[in-house]
Amino acid sequence: MIITVTLNPAIDVTYRLPRLTVGEVHRVAEVTTRLGGKGVNVARVLHQLGEPAHAVGLADAHFADALASELPSTFLPELEDVRRTVVVVAGSTTSLWEPGRQAAPGADRRLLDLLEARLANATALTVSGSLAPGVPADLPARIARLAAGAGVPVLLDLDDAALVAAVGTGAVLTPNEDEAERLLGHAPDDPVAAVEELAARNRGPVVLTRGRLGLIACADGTCWEARPPAGIAGNPTGAGDAAAAGLARGLAHGRPWPEILRDAAALGAAAVAAPVAGEIDAETYASVLADIRVEPPDHEEA
Amino acid sequence: MIITVTLNPAIDVTYRLPRLTVGEVHRVAEVTTRLGGKGVNVARVLHQLGEPAHAVGLADAHFADALASELPSTFLPELEDVRRTVVVVAGSTTSLWEPGRQAAPGADRRLLDLLEARLANATALTVSGSLAPGVPADLPARIARLAAGAGVPVLLDLDDAALVAAVGTGAVLTPNEDEAERLLGHAPDDPVAAVEELAARNRGPVVLTRGRLGLIACADGTCWEARPPAGIAGNPTGAGDAAAAGLARGLAHGRPWPEILRDAAALGAAAVAAPVAGEIDAETYASVLADIRVEPPDHEEA
Repeated sequence: MIITVTLNPAIDVTYRLPRLTVGEVHRVAEVTTRLGGKGVNVARVLHQLGEPAHAVGLADAHFADALASELPSTFLPELEDVRRTVVVVAGSTTSLWEPGRQAAPGADRRLLDLLEARLANATALTVSGSLAPGVPADLPARIARLAAGAGVPVLLDLDDAALVAAVGTGAVLTPNEDEAERLLGHAPDDPVAAVEELAARNRGPVVLTRGRLGLIACADGTCWEARPPAGIAGNPTGAGDAAAAGLARGLAHGRPWPEILRDAAALGAAAVAAPVAGEIDAETYASVLADIRVEPPDHEEA
Repeated sequence: MIITVTLNPAIDVTYRLPRLTVGEVHRVAEVTTRLGGKGVNVARVLHQLGEPAHAVGLADAHFADALASELPSTFLPELEDVRRTVVVVAGSTTSLWEPGRQAAPGADRRLLDLLEARLANATALTVSGSLAPGVPADLPARIARLAAGAGVPVLLDLDDAALVAAVGTGAVLTPNEDEAERLLGHAPDDPVAAVEELAARNRGPVVLTRGRLGLIACADGTCWEARPPAGIAGNPTGAGDAAAAGLARGLAHGRPWPEILRDAAALGAAAVAAPVAGEIDAETYASVLADIRVEPPDHEEA
């Protein structure tokens, strides 16, 4: 059972309109609503892969009940409300992202208690995405240490202060290039050197996520690069979550890193080919998997 | 106790942004959310006036619980969800109105049962706004006949097919000029003639709502015009609901029509001066009330 943790979930709302004109009233004919957040999307992809997963996090009671009717999940009712992300698709795409809602005092403690009780049955754990206001920035790091103490491998897909606090926990970190540069405090000489330096600081694996360029990972003193084939078009939202699902599955099964990275890169590509975040295109996944080259990376100019 | 009925409630969401640009991602810093719908706004104004009111309608369980914690109300959980109206205030105002959500089969019957049980304690009843999909267009007319049978005066603030079905019930109807013209099937010679004709067809009072121009009403063969003073600036959303609250209060207390119309016009003006629908500006109300002239209307060119 893989546990995925979401500390700032969202309700993803899509409005489809013929056109959006600033200053006017629009009657929206088509509304789609989906319970989201990065860890929820990781759990959805694992579920689609037939891998047992349980989504855990902070939300309100309404979100918690609705998600539990869709997906194995336990969300503590610690937020006053769940933010919405409104995406208006009208030729171009216009997005309105509400801020996260305040977490109740003590929510971090109650979440740790919940996770502690569930770690006995866990094969891996992920923490993905931003933190709701009121959640301490070091909560993902504390979760990682708790899981490590129980012998459960951990993947942390974080940004900002939570990512800074996570360096040194030894958990797998998955920064993108901007986050890696901010973590390093300087522009790296080349991406491989950046990952090597971050892995050393982290005392654990670091996987640099590079969108269409794939992944560069360093673990236990060795580095690899996984490059997906070019030319997969679609919606990149959710590709990182699908890749995280692949990494978590590989960690859960104790697979070798080259195999883990091939799977994660293929799942990222298969998510681009699917229309909705939290889903993969199974045909793309199957066809891409064999074409991904995993090799020692060349050092290259950044 | 005045009962206000809402058959298509909404959650009114306001986003405030420095600017809205089509095709871009916006992080919304300020979100305000309010449980709404026209009948809910009527109940809010009555509540502010110290007049006992109970809001009744169709919604989902979440909306019903949340509203009950704010306002005396009973909403049956008959809708799959409650629509949102998103208003983006960014210099200009851009609105996105979701469609109403489907009502469960038999919702009309269950609402009539609920109202029947409550009519013994009712002094007046209003039905305001549109109908959720799945609600029969004649439900407001059936509610009006039920209330009339119990001796309770009724105000129907409707449009489209529900308004057509309500003509002849004898309930007070409150069309605006566009609705009156559609009901008549022709452009009226002048507004007073339109109201006279509609009141005759309705076999009951008709109050034409004319925004800043005030109200023209015909009841029991007599017509009046109530004109608010010019120059009240603000937000006209909710002015009609405040006027409906005034009409309902007057009907509940059996006041004479000129007095009812003066109060309704003053409340409409006081709602324009308040920033949010469902509220009135108490100072404006007090100062405007004495300045409103209620007189037999002149016939005028349309």
